[in-house]
Parts: sequence; structure tokens; C-alpha cells
Amino acid sequence: MDGSPDDISNLKYLLEPESVAVIGASRDPQKIGYQVLWNLIGGGFPREKIFPINPKAEEILDLKCYPSILEVPEKVDLAVIVVPAKIVPMVLKQCVEKGVKAVAIISAGFGEVGNIAAEEEIVRIAREGGMRLLGPNIVGVANTHNNMNASFCQALPFKGNIAFITQSGALAIALVGWTLLEKIGLSALVSLGNKADVDDADLILYLRDDPKTSVITIYMEGLDDGRKFMDAASKVSAQKPIIIVKAGRSERGAKAASSHTGSLAGSDIAYTAAFKKYGVLRASNIQELFDWAMATAYMPPLKNNNVVILTNGGGAGVLATDECESSGINLMDIPPELAEELRKYMPPFGSVGNPIDLTGMATKEWYKGALKALLSHKDVGGVIVLYCHTAITAPMEIAEAIIEAYEESNKDKPITTSFIGGSECLKSQEHLRRNNIPSYPSPERAVSAMAALLERGKYLMKPPSKAPKLDVDRVTAQRIIGKALEEDRSALSSIEAFQVAEAYGIPVPPLQVVKSREEAVSVARSVGFPLVAEIESPDIIHKTDVGGIVLNIENEDAALKAFDQILENIKKNTPTAKVIGVAFRKMVEEGQEVLVGMHRDPTFGPLIAFGMGGIFVNILKDVSFRITPLTEMEAKEMISETKASKILYGYRGMETLDINSVVDVILRVSQLAMDFKEITDIDVNPLFVYRNGCVAVDVKILLGKSEKNENKP
Amino acid sequence: MDGSPDDISNLKYLLEPESVAVIGASRDPQKIGYQVLWNLIGGGFPREKIFPINPKAEEILDLKCYPSILEVPEKVDLAVIVVPAKIVPMVLKQCVEKGVKAVAIISAGFGEVGNIAAEEEIVRIAREGGMRLLGPNIVGVANTHNNMNASFCQALPFKGNIAFITQSGALAIALVGWTLLEKIGLSALVSLGNKADVDDADLILYLRDDPKTSVITIYMEGLDDGRKFMDAASKVSAQKPIIIVKAGRSERGAKAASSHTGSLAGSDIAYTAAFKKYGVLRASNIQELFDWAMATAYMPPLKNNNVVILTNGGGAGVLATDECESSGINLMDIPPELAEELRKYMPPFGSVGNPIDLTGMATKEWYKGALKALLSHKDVGGVIVLYCHTAITAPMEIAEAIIEAYEESNKDKPITTSFIGGSECLKSQEHLRRNNIPSYPSPERAVSAMAALLERGKYLMKPPSKAPKLDVDRVTAQRIIGKALEEDRSALSSIEAFQVAEAYGIPVPPLQVVKSREEAVSVARSVGFPLVAEIESPDIIHKTDVGGIVLNIENEDAALKAFDQILENIKKNTPTAKVIGVAFRKMVEEGQEVLVGMHRDPTFGPLIAFGMGGIFVNILKDVSFRITPLTEMEAKEMISETKASKILYGYRGMETLDINSVVDVILRVSQLAMDFKEITDIDVNPLFVYRNGCVAVDVKILLGKSEKNENKP
Repeated sequence: MDGSPDDISNLKYLLEPESVAVIGASRDPQKIGYQVLWNLIGGGFPREKIFPINPKAEEILDLKCYPSILEVPEKVDLAVIVVPAKIVPMVLKQCVEKGVKAVAIISAGFGEVGNIAAEEEIVRIAREGGMRLLGPNIVGVANTHNNMNASFCQALPFKGNIAFITQSGALAIALVGWTLLEKIGLSALVSLGNKADVDDADLILYLRDDPKTSVITIYMEGLDDGRKFMDAASKVSAQKPIIIVKAGRSERGAKAASSHTGSLAGSDIAYTAAFKKYGVLRASNIQELFDWAMATAYMPPLKNNNVVILTNGGGAGVLATDECESSGINLMDIPPELAEELRKYMPPFGSVGNPIDLTGMATKEWYKGALKALLSHKDVGGVIVLYCHTAITAPMEIAEAIIEAYEESNKDKPITTSFIGGSECLKSQEHLRRNNIPSYPSPERAVSAMAALLERGKYLMKPPSKAPKLDVDRVTAQRIIGKALEEDRSALSSIEAFQVAEAYGIPVPPLQVVKSREEAVSVARSVGFPLVAEIESPDIIHKTDVGGIVLNIENEDAALKAFDQILENIKKNTPTAKVIGVAFRKMVEEGQEVLVGMHRDPTFGPLIAFGMGGIFVNILKDVSFRITPLTEMEAKEMISETKASKILYGYRGMETLDINSVVDVILRVSQLAMDFKEITDIDVNPLFVYRNGCVAVDVKILLGKSEKNENKP
Repeated sequence: MDGSPDDISNLKYLLEPESVAVIGASRDPQKIGYQVLWNLIGGGFPREKIFPINPKAEEILDLKCYPSILEVPEKVDLAVIVVPAKIVPMVLKQCVEKGVKAVAIISAGFGEVGNIAAEEEIVRIAREGGMRLLGPNIVGVANTHNNMNASFCQALPFKGNIAFITQSGALAIALVGWTLLEKIGLSALVSLGNKADVDDADLILYLRDDPKTSVITIYMEGLDDGRKFMDAASKVSAQKPIIIVKAGRSERGAKAASSHTGSLAGSDIAYTAAFKKYGVLRASNIQELFDWAMATAYMPPLKNNNVVILTNGGGAGVLATDECESSGINLMDIPPELAEELRKYMPPFGSVGNPIDLTGMATKEWYKGALKALLSHKDVGGVIVLYCHTAITAPMEIAEAIIEAYEESNKDKPITTSFIGGSECLKSQEHLRRNNIPSYPSPERAVSAMAALLERGKYLMKPPSKAPKLDVDRVTAQRIIGKALEEDRSALSSIEAFQVAEAYGIPVPPLQVVKSREEAVSVARSVGFPLVAEIESPDIIHKTDVGGIVLNIENEDAALKAFDQILENIKKNTPTAKVIGVAFRKMVEEGQEVLVGMHRDPTFGPLIAFGMGGIFVNILKDVSFRITPLTEMEAKEMISETKASKILYGYRGMETLDINSVVDVILRVSQLAMDFKEITDIDVNPLFVYRNGCVAVDVKILLGKSEKNENKP
């Protein structure tokens, strides 16, 4: 309770208040100030702990009304504010005076309409007063477990263990109705609005320790502070799954999201990379969000990717099989002794392949026996159970069989189920869910849920690893970068970039700048032939155009001649350019082209890229991304994620190349980006990779002077 | 009514019979023979036109029972057969004698358990008797519009205009329940079973002319005769949409489907290519199948890909926007005069970008006004209408607004809608559907439905085009291929392959076979330098290993020397090989590598492939496919579908290459494959493409002697 913006202890008063004031309570049923009060009462929050505030009313909905919060005779934990924007500051000050610990500001008219100053003012008041502030511009906050519906959502959701945080108020209202229809239970519902103070990061940290919440779901349009969220996610994800629908993945969608919420739109790639880093599951739509939430709330993660499909209909089995393949779920081959056991639970024309087809004759006993056999077999990691409604079995019996088989197992392996059919199947799904078994109407959704459990299992099983300490010459890099910044440049020259790379241990060709005719020959000899000579000047970008480059210099004479000729060309073609010298760089043997790059994302910071070079990058976008800091394992994953990296691993008789040297370059680029926040972009492209080692053939480093400049697209 | 297998006129008796006999009707409610009778009666088929056949019963379910169909005093159109497999032939013969025109064989125990002979026998009996035969091994057939449920599905679906054909019986039963739950109306439901006689092709042709059916949906695991289906689809697709879930798209799924139905598994790529050719929409799951069916049944196709999203919730708008981008739907920019008009229907903080955000304040009047404005604007091609349940509007009012606006429009543009919320939204969706407006619970599904309308629009708008007549030397090709087949070879030699390619007008380097030392120099001169010399022998495959190739021959002396040396090497290294001569082939300048290939798919025949050469093909699988015959337009589409083809079009300052010459090669490879069904595979790889023209640097042609051999994987 230090009043700092990151202090989450006061969120208790937001989500579990013992008393709630509604400031701006109204007698007019059309007004939000009435609806919030109505919802609080209707949700079952203790009437005596609800305090309507309205200077013009004596009583609303049979509750005594107070002219101001200061008149309330009891302690108030949470104030819900529904008054016009203009008087919010005044009201907030009263809350501070009253000792309120959390406010939820439903009122709109702040940042979302450009009224930044007003938003800053209310945050200042709240922070100075030690209050956490939710909103403004929200539909409210609800907690089913203390019967609190402090929102203008028409009803409290069912009690459950899924917390739902949303940046869209309209979706909050609409989805409450949807969860009621779909019988999905929630623990908490939080509308974030403008996120002036309380944001996603605060809430996930708070909900990590909420015993009523097993899984945290978020509808997100954008984050202002990506690093804060990543930090929070890293602390939460190991304990509870976080599942997010991040809208705005398309360019136009990002624009719409940005204009909708005013969030800074970092690149969607950066969001994906950030989520992946800390095991946040990214769902592609709301249905998947809740499908996955149910699965991760009810089931242990899939830690052994050996899955079996159990079905009574071949067609459903095939559909699920297709989906498994595209979801990365491995369908195991059934070992003979297990097949023999399974044969007991099917007619002779059943199948013990995988899918296991019990056929349309499958009874409750067969389902139970087969599922028990699978769950108790050491090789089986998880089971997807499918049931097609048949004329001979009641779906509810099969649901019972599944529940019994699971209850009688060790419950250490996940199962997901699908019941395909009409209203009886729907009832069976609901019955299964009540018994903590995820159940869906289509085979594909049961598979998708298992895929979420697989992703979660992979994250939890990752061995701990840290970003390595690298030996770098930071001082040299600092000197070069500092000089360029002093000279107000937005890029290093190619020579400078090579020097910075070298200082950071990124292999570059032998390279020296020749400053006088006298030293040309000895420098050439020490660099080695063949070499490239090129003008070194901060004023010349397109060197070829002004005759500033000579390639393929094979001997000392040619080196001297090239030195003279370049200086002559420059004098003739661009006489005003400042000349530092002529750089001699050894030409290196051609290797396999790859690229390592960095772009500083405005939301998440350094986003590291790896891709196979040339056309693969430009046309095929076969590139993988991670957010810094990078561990060695992440660098290796980046390489193997690109399709074209097969070439590095020795594709079809090609020789295996030095992947470790590329991993090292990725880590060093990552380190460089972290050490110098003035660097906005790094492009090591191409990096030639050989059987032994690699060399950066071109290095570009762009600079931005301030954070603000950096953040420009 | 010619009794031929392709005569579809008798399908009338299968789908619209005036009288139905149930052969194998039973008094035991557990038996299918009872259930079918019960369902026929319960579905509302005229009782007096239902004839149970059972020699051991007098009466079942109050209907008079006959000992054999021959005893039935009236004409029988359709016989549903539920007797054991063994007596099906006897019963079928009686049906023929009785003059029955169609039989539906529910009985199992035929091809699906390996009993091929029995299946062939029943087909023979039916065909000789002029009867069409559905099944065997089916759940039956239903037609809602004549109240016929001749199946053991527990209920007749709702009346509607979607026909559903399924290869999986279990899915038929399960999905009937599901359609009842989801309030989806069907016209006909046909379980195909083993497809011994009646197949998908027959049914779509029949349903094309069924006035009660607007759209045909199919769950398919495999086709035995892909060409028959393509031919039928080409005749149906322009009139009615055909939408298919093809299971078995994964390798393991295909194996499961194949063992499930015994269908030949052609490659999934071939199915996709075949469907695309004739505008068949391929849905990825059952829900999408019916989502698309509803959209295409109710709405005109999207012929102008300028779509607008209309919403009252920003979040829903963003989600839909993302989905549009990944579905290929173009969200248009709103022209100023339309924006001005739309401003009338929103508060000042609404948005006239696209998505159009009417905000949570949107009323019935605003929705109606905005939608009318959009539908009447000349630039707008279609509208996706989203509604998030709010506290201030009743969903049903918004549904009414949409219906009114659409009814008052020209109805020449498609709209799809999504109502996000609880039970009131569900009711509104149903209300919209009853009024022929597709409506879904999530924005993504409304977008997906619009994408289906877009794909259909694209197909219908394609200008008619025909496979071109090409000038080829078929006689020469015939001679070379015939000789290889006579010699029992499964491949042409590389020289032969070049010669066949040349005969078909595929550009190949100058090439001649030198048969004697005397002609070596003159041949070398006429071929041109530099050239490659290589041994021509049917017995030598790995020419390099035996010293059978000399590269980079620059002059006449070297050519003569190479000739001598190759023959000497062969004599030494593989003395028994039959030597035809030494081929001299001009080495060509390196161009952009592409490949054109053909593989004869067992289901659909020649599948033509185009891809960028080398690593793109091997690692990135950046390849496009079509089924023959190919039109010029299709060949062009093939090229532009590959990502890497940007290189051909002049990527980033690269020169534009001769795409027409590649189109020509694709068409010629296609022609060659069609002309010689003995050719199983053609591989023109690499084909070097230049600014002017292209040259095949390597050509491989594989042969198969019979259809059966060809079809082996």
C-alpha cells in the first residue's frame, strides 16, 4: 500500500470490497447510475453495504441516499463513479478524503475523446491519495464469488473459475449474456477502459493469488507498457494459464483498435513474440478463448505429446485426426498389448488404430473400459473422446462413463471431449463440464482444446534458462555510437557499424580505414586480399553512384590505385563531402546467407529477427521473432522455427553449417540492442554461414535520439 | 431411364417416392427394421403408402405386413432394405420383378468388410433391373419436403433448402440432432455408405434440378471416380453452390478415412485442385459447412469485393476486421458523400471509417438508416452487420431494422450478420434466419460466411475459357513412348524425354545423339558450344558414376575427345550396357529456375504443378496445382498463386521475365499428360526462364503400363 502505480494490494478493494458506494446513483431507470445500483442489489451484494450517492435524492431503490461520500457513516472500500467527467476530479478528492481504496470510473469523456489532461489529473489525484483507479470509460467490475455486479452489464455471470478482463466495454456486456447462454462460469469480470491506472499487468498479478480464479482470460486491443505486462506474465504464467485474444492482428484491424482505444499499436508480431516468451496462450477468437480456458481450468497440461482419439464414429475420428495434424498434436501408434486390451471393448470390425473406433455399437461399458485402459497406459499422454449420437445409446450414459473413467484414473493426464448431436448431446456436454471435464459440440474444438493443453505443457516443461553473460567491448561501441549521436546522425556509417559489431563479438571481415596514401599498402597487406575499398564519409550514402567503391582488389598495386581513384572520384563528384578515409575490407568467401536483425518495438522494446537471407526474407517472410533478453535456447528455437533453416541443418546431403556461430550472433545482437537504447534498428544481412563460423558481410545500425523518436513508425 | 449407371432419372424414386416398402420390417423396437418403419410413419409419410415386408408378421405398427414385396398390391417406388447381407440379392431380384425403381440398402456386410463380390452382385442385379441402388451400409435417406424419413435417424430434420449428403452414417444421425438444435433446415439428407451405385456425382446432378434445394452440402471422405464428380460439379456449380467438407486432409486422416470407407485416397492436394476448378467451396469443418450453406442459400454472391463492416461495438469491429484481412475480404474506404450520409446515424464520437462504428448508443433507426445508405451506395459490394448486446437496445429491434433495410434494398448485394450476446441475441439470430438473412453468434463466422460469398462470386464471374488447341507432334512422342513401353521400361531416358518434350513444343536445348565417331564433330558444330556430352543408354541411370558425362565442352576437338572418352569409360565400367550413342546437348545460360510437373492422381488424373525451382520447391513447398485440362487463365493463376512468382513479375527492380513462355510450357505439359495416359509423371525441372523465352534443362518422364500400375503410389 505504498500508493505507487504498481502496488496491487489495493486491488483487493476493487475486486473484493466489503462496501461499495455508487457516486452518481440515479432514480431514472434509463440512466447508468440507476442500472449499476440495480445490478449491485440484484447480484446479491449485501444491501446494507451499498451506498448510493446523489445530492438530489433521499432514497433510490429503497436504499438511503447520501449527498456525498463524505456523509456515508461507514467505511467505503470501493467507489463506482458515474458522474459527468467534469466533476470526477472533485468526487475523487472526496473519495481520498473518505479513505476509499479503489475507484471504478464508468464515466467517459477522458483520453478516449482526446481529453488527456483530464485523465492525467484524475490519475494524479488517485495516486496521491493512495487509491487504485479502474477506467475511466468502463462498464464496471464484477466478482461472482462475492455477488458483486458493480457494472451496467445486465446480469452477474455464473460463478466459475475463469477471470475475464476486457479492453472493450461493449464486448463485456455482450459476452456476459453469451457466457450465461453457454453456461460458462466466471470468477471476475473487469472492464479496463482507458487503463489510466489499473491495467492488465496489475490484474493478472492480483488474480494469480486469487483462489477463486484458475485461469485468466483477456480481450486485448493494445498495451501501453509492454515490458510491464511481460514482467507480470513471467510471474503469473507458471502458476496460472493466461489466455488472450489480441485484436488488431491485421494492419487495418490494428488501426481500428488504435483509434478505438487510443492504445499505441506495437507490431502484432511483437505481441505474438512477447506472449510466446512467457507462455501466454494466444487464442484467435472469443470462442477459442473460452474453449481453452475451460480446458486449462479443468485439466492438467499435456506433458507427453502422445495422444489417442477414442470415437464411436469413423467420420468424427477422421475430422479430429486432420485437426490434430494441423495443431501439432501427435497421434501415437497403439502398442500391441494396449490394442489387445482395447479389443475387449469393441466388435470385431472395430479399429484399434488411432483413432480407436468403438463403432456405433459402443456402449457405456465399452467407453468406460477403453478410456480406463488408455488413461492407465504409460505411453498415453492424453485422450480426445468423441461421441456421435446414435440410435442405440443415450449420450448421458456415455458422459457418465467418461466421468467415471476419469475419476477412477490418476487424473494426471488431460482429456477433452466432443458430443456431436442434438439437445441430448448439449445436456451431456453441460453435465461433463459440471464435472470438470471439458466438452464441446465439435471434434475440432475438442482437438483445439487439447492443443492448448499441449502448448501449456511445453511451456511448463521448459528447463529454466537465462540470458548468457557475453564478453563485449561496450566502451568502444559507446564511443562510436556517442559520436554519431553528437553529430546528430540517424545511422552509423558502414565502417562504424562494422566496428560496433566487432566490439560486440559479431564476426566481421578484416577491415581498416586508410587515412593516407602512405599507409595504403601496409593496411591492404594486413587486411588481406582480395579486398574491397570503399569511401568512408558520413555524407555519402550511395557510394557506388559517386565512384566510392572498388571491388576485387587482388594485390598491393591495385589497392594503392583504388585508394587514389576513389579519392579522385569523390573530389570530382561530391567535393563537399567530409572524407574520413578509404576503408579496406577483406572480401569473404560466399556462404549460406542468413540475416539477424533487431527492431525496437514501441510497446515491447527490442524485437530480434532471424531469417534465411535474400529472397526468403523479402518475398517469403520466412522469419522468426523473439523479444529480448534472449536465452541460448530461444536463439536456437528462432533458427529452427524458420522453414528454410533446414538448409543449415544439412538438407539432402548438403553439409551441416555452424549453427552455434549463428546462435552466438543472435545473442550478441540482442545484447547490443539491450545495451544501447538509442539503437532503433540493427540489420546484419547477409551473414554468411560456413561449416565453421560465420561472417557478417553487411551491418546497418540506425539510431534514434530519444524514446519518442524511436517510437515513430 | 436407360438403366445405365449414370442415369439419374430414377433418383426421383429414391428422393421423391410416392410409396415405400421396408423389406425387413421388424416388430422389435431395438431393431433397425422397426426404427425405419417408425420413422417413416412419424415423419408424416402417408401411412397407406408404406408397406412393411416381413414373412413372419401380419402387422407392424398397425400397418399390414406382406410376406414379400411381390405381394404388395400397389406400385412400389422405393424399397428400403434392412435384411441380412446374405439375402439381399434374393430380395433385390424380387424388387426388380416388382418394378421397383430405387432401393436404399441399409444392410451392412459388403465392401466395407471386404465382401467385394457380394457388392458387385447386388449392383449387377440392380443395374440389369433398371434400379438405382443407394448404399449398402447406410443409415437411409430423408426428404423433408415429402415428409419421408426412410432412415434410422431418430427424427426428420426441419424443412429447409440445404441438401446434405454424407459418406459417414454416424455423422448423419448425429448431425440431424445438431441441425434440429441449431434450427438449420434441410431439404434432403442422403447417407451414401459404400456408394456401390449412387454416388455424390449422381446426387448433385439430380439435386441441381430439385426446386426445394438451393445449396448442396457434402461430407466426403473419398471419391472412387474423381472425373465423374468433376464433370457433374462443372454442370451444377454455376446453378447451385456445392460446399464440401473433405475429411482426410492430413496423412493420418486420409489413412483413417480410407480404412473407414475403403475409398481410394487420392492426394488431398488433388481434391483441393479439383474443387477449385469448378467452384466447389471447401469448408474446413461441419460448422463452416452449414454456415456457408446458409449464406449461399440466402444471399446473392459477393461480386464486388468492397465490403463494409457496420457495428455498435469497436471491439467486435476490430475482430471482424482482422478476420476480413485473413479471408481476402477487402474493406473499402468510405467515400466522403457516403460518410456524410452515415454521420446522420451516429453520435459525434461515432466512426465513419470502416468499420463504421455507430457506438453503443445505436438505435433501431440508426442501424436501419446506415444499412440502407450502405446498400444503396454504388461502390458498396456487401455489408457485414455486427451487433453487441447493449443495455439500451433490444436485439430483436435491431434484427427488425436489418430485415427492413434489406427488404427495402434491391437485394442484389449480400449481407451477413452477427449478434453477440445471450439468449435474446440467439432469438434474434433465429428471427433473421427465418427471414433469409444469415446470422451467427460471432463476428468471425459472419466474416467467414461473407468470404464464402466472395469465393462464389469470383467463380461465377470468371469469363468462360477453354483449353487451347496446341500444335504438337503426337506421332513422334507416340513412337518414343511406345518403344519404351515395349521394352518394359518405367521411364524414358533423358534424351528420349527431351525429344518428347520437343515434340510437344516445350523448349529444350539443341540436342543430338552422336552414333559414330565420324559424325561427332559435325553434330557438335550444329548443336553449338559450350555443350555437354552424355552417354545415351537405357541401362545406365547414374551417368556420372560410370564416367558417362563430360561438361563444358568448348570446341570441336574437345567434343571428339569427350565422345571417345565416354565410350571408353562405359566399356571399362559397365561393359554389358547397351549403348545407343553419345548425346550432345548445348549448355544454356542460367535463367530463373522454375519447375513444371505432372503427377497422375489415382482419383482425378493429371495433376499439374508449378513452382519456383530448387529450394523453394523442396523446402518451402511453394507450389500450385491444377487438374487437367488447363486453360490459359488457369495456367496464369497457377503462376501467380505461388509466392515466389513475384520474382518472375520483376521484383524490386529485377527484370520481368517471360511469363507467357512458362504458361505455354504448363499448357503443353498438360496436353502431353492428357494425350498419353501411360505417362504417370512429368518433371520439367529446372526450367530456366529468361526475359525472352525459357528452356527446359532437365526433363523426366515416368511411365506406367496399365491404369492399375499407374495408380500405385
